[in-house]
Amino acid sequence: MNKAIILKSRPKGTPQLSDFKSIEEKMPQVMQGEVLLKTLFVSVDPYLRGRMSDAESYVPPFELNKPVSSGIVAEVVESKNDNFKKGDFVSNLLEWKEYQVSTGEGLQKLDPSLQPLSVYLGIVGMTGMTAYMGLTKIGKPKAGETIVVSGAAGAVGSVVGQIGKILGCRVIGIAGSDDKVEMLKSKFGFDEAINYNTTKDMNKAIAEAAPNGVDIYFDNVGGSISDAVHRNINQFARVIICGAISLYNATELPMGPRVEGLLIKKSALMQGFIVSDFSDKFAEGAQQLGQWLQEGKLTYEETVVEGFDSIPEAFIGLFTGKNTGKMIVKV
Amino acid sequence: MNKAIILKSRPKGTPQLSDFKSIEEKMPQVMQGEVLLKTLFVSVDPYLRGRMSDAESYVPPFELNKPVSSGIVAEVVESKNDNFKKGDFVSNLLEWKEYQVSTGEGLQKLDPSLQPLSVYLGIVGMTGMTAYMGLTKIGKPKAGETIVVSGAAGAVGSVVGQIGKILGCRVIGIAGSDDKVEMLKSKFGFDEAINYNTTKDMNKAIAEAAPNGVDIYFDNVGGSISDAVHRNINQFARVIICGAISLYNATELPMGPRVEGLLIKKSALMQGFIVSDFSDKFAEGAQQLGQWLQEGKLTYEETVVEGFDSIPEAFIGLFTGKNTGKMIVKV
Repeated sequence: MNKAIILKSRPKGTPQLSDFKSIEEKMPQVMQGEVLLKTLFVSVDPYLRGRMSDAESYVPPFELNKPVSSGIVAEVVESKNDNFKKGDFVSNLLEWKEYQVSTGEGLQKLDPSLQPLSVYLGIVGMTGMTAYMGLTKIGKPKAGETIVVSGAAGAVGSVVGQIGKILGCRVIGIAGSDDKVEMLKSKFGFDEAINYNTTKDMNKAIAEAAPNGVDIYFDNVGGSISDAVHRNINQFARVIICGAISLYNATELPMGPRVEGLLIKKSALMQGFIVSDFSDKFAEGAQQLGQWLQEGKLTYEETVVEGFDSIPEAFIGLFTGKNTGKMIVKV
Repeated sequence: MNKAIILKSRPKGTPQLSDFKSIEEKMPQVMQGEVLLKTLFVSVDPYLRGRMSDAESYVPPFELNKPVSSGIVAEVVESKNDNFKKGDFVSNLLEWKEYQVSTGEGLQKLDPSLQPLSVYLGIVGMTGMTAYMGLTKIGKPKAGETIVVSGAAGAVGSVVGQIGKILGCRVIGIAGSDDKVEMLKSKFGFDEAINYNTTKDMNKAIAEAAPNGVDIYFDNVGGSISDAVHRNINQFARVIICGAISLYNATELPMGPRVEGLLIKKSALMQGFIVSDFSDKFAEGAQQLGQWLQEGKLTYEETVVEGFDSIPEAFIGLFTGKNTGKMIVKV
């Protein structure tokens, strides 16, 4: 029998284990032109929370009682498609199933000799691409500028900070534990890092860490942490809105200080994006990220949870900061 | 004796007449190299409210007990400067005085045969330039797109709408009276206009006026009107923050719905600006605005208040929508 994890109910507020259900189904049959894929690594990402609601969004919501899907690395275990052979490793947006068939469309072949397979879900995958596109295409950093990154110890944030350093900027990270703060400085080369859980006056802490003000704010979290960063932005600042994890589970419309006055006063820009807005620049991004990784200029961190049945728990853990770097489930 | 209007106290909330004082002083002496200017027309603008506070901003605050300054058209009544002769008309940022001396620096000579002198404070001055720069350089409108303008019957808003029409867009204005709404459609060519004072459900009214959604929002007001527009923006929308007149007199930090989630969902941009951000493009703007005006593609409206002593009253009237189009004081 094959296993799948379906969305049983649309989460209200923070997702609960009871919103998901593990089901068994018959093993799929492989038709001519198809391949059978065995799931090896599953990426769990904050943005999936949006697709679990039925509110209008840039991507359609997940259907109830159907498997959830996310970025997955799989092995071809049977092939009736000339483009793939048994033993190939591939990745794509796939369903939370132990086994599934694919026509091959959209499957990207992976080379396990270049880097561990899970990394294709992270720094050289959509995670790294998201960091690269947001920072370079919207933020347009200039050497000597100051970048603040929230959710800095997360999958995207830790790459943003490293790219900022490569480009000659001062980089300040905001994260939620002393361990993460320490790692941002020692492993990822951030100039300063702030633990928002133990800092009383975030406004002042950011002002001290950024004595020349904040030119670029790469925002993964939204909410009150962002309010404190906004108070420290410079003229012509760029605020890149990549995520708002602090708001995803809100059950009412989140309120906060209006930003219009600030944006005028500072002639500042705020721009939201998703990585696919820049799909015409993916080739450039992949080339640049791969080069930096091979030159040893980029490093990464993974939090690996074991077992197919742990996928919902790993996903839910994102909202309480259980992960450092990319959260991966190894099946 | 000469008259001047000074800032007596920093306004708390909405400016009051008692925040200003008319004083008399000796007529200034004209030294070699200087000219004596007689004030003819005074521009009063919402942005002056910001300079009356002592909060940090992009321009230094007005000093207490010193004259306020704004855009002024004046006549040269005495000249000891070879570049100017008696009878010349000039404009610049000048003080609220009946007479003042100038070294000539920054004075722009005006041709009264091209258009009425007051227009140099409006559509072919900083007002028109503000509309042009914000809409074309940040909004980047494409023919067929839908533009919503708040404060549409104001000096900047009425020009934004007309430029939008020239560029082939559908233009919807928001204003505060039936007369203004009528004028937006009949005089300025807006496709639709909404009276926010008599419309219960702004969200619905905007949705109906913009059946294809809102691609560009040129925001002069901020606050709850803007919240309703935001709910109707399209993917890749551009929100141009030019003014926030509904917030300028706030005595506490104004709160509202957080925009991060929306900006991500729509891959949308919000950008604040002041006209001087685009000073390198003023020549282009002046040429284009002048051409459209001469071709009869642009028209304008002025609210003219008479008398030097009426300047504070005219300024305060901006915040209750007393003006249609550009608010001017004729001395």
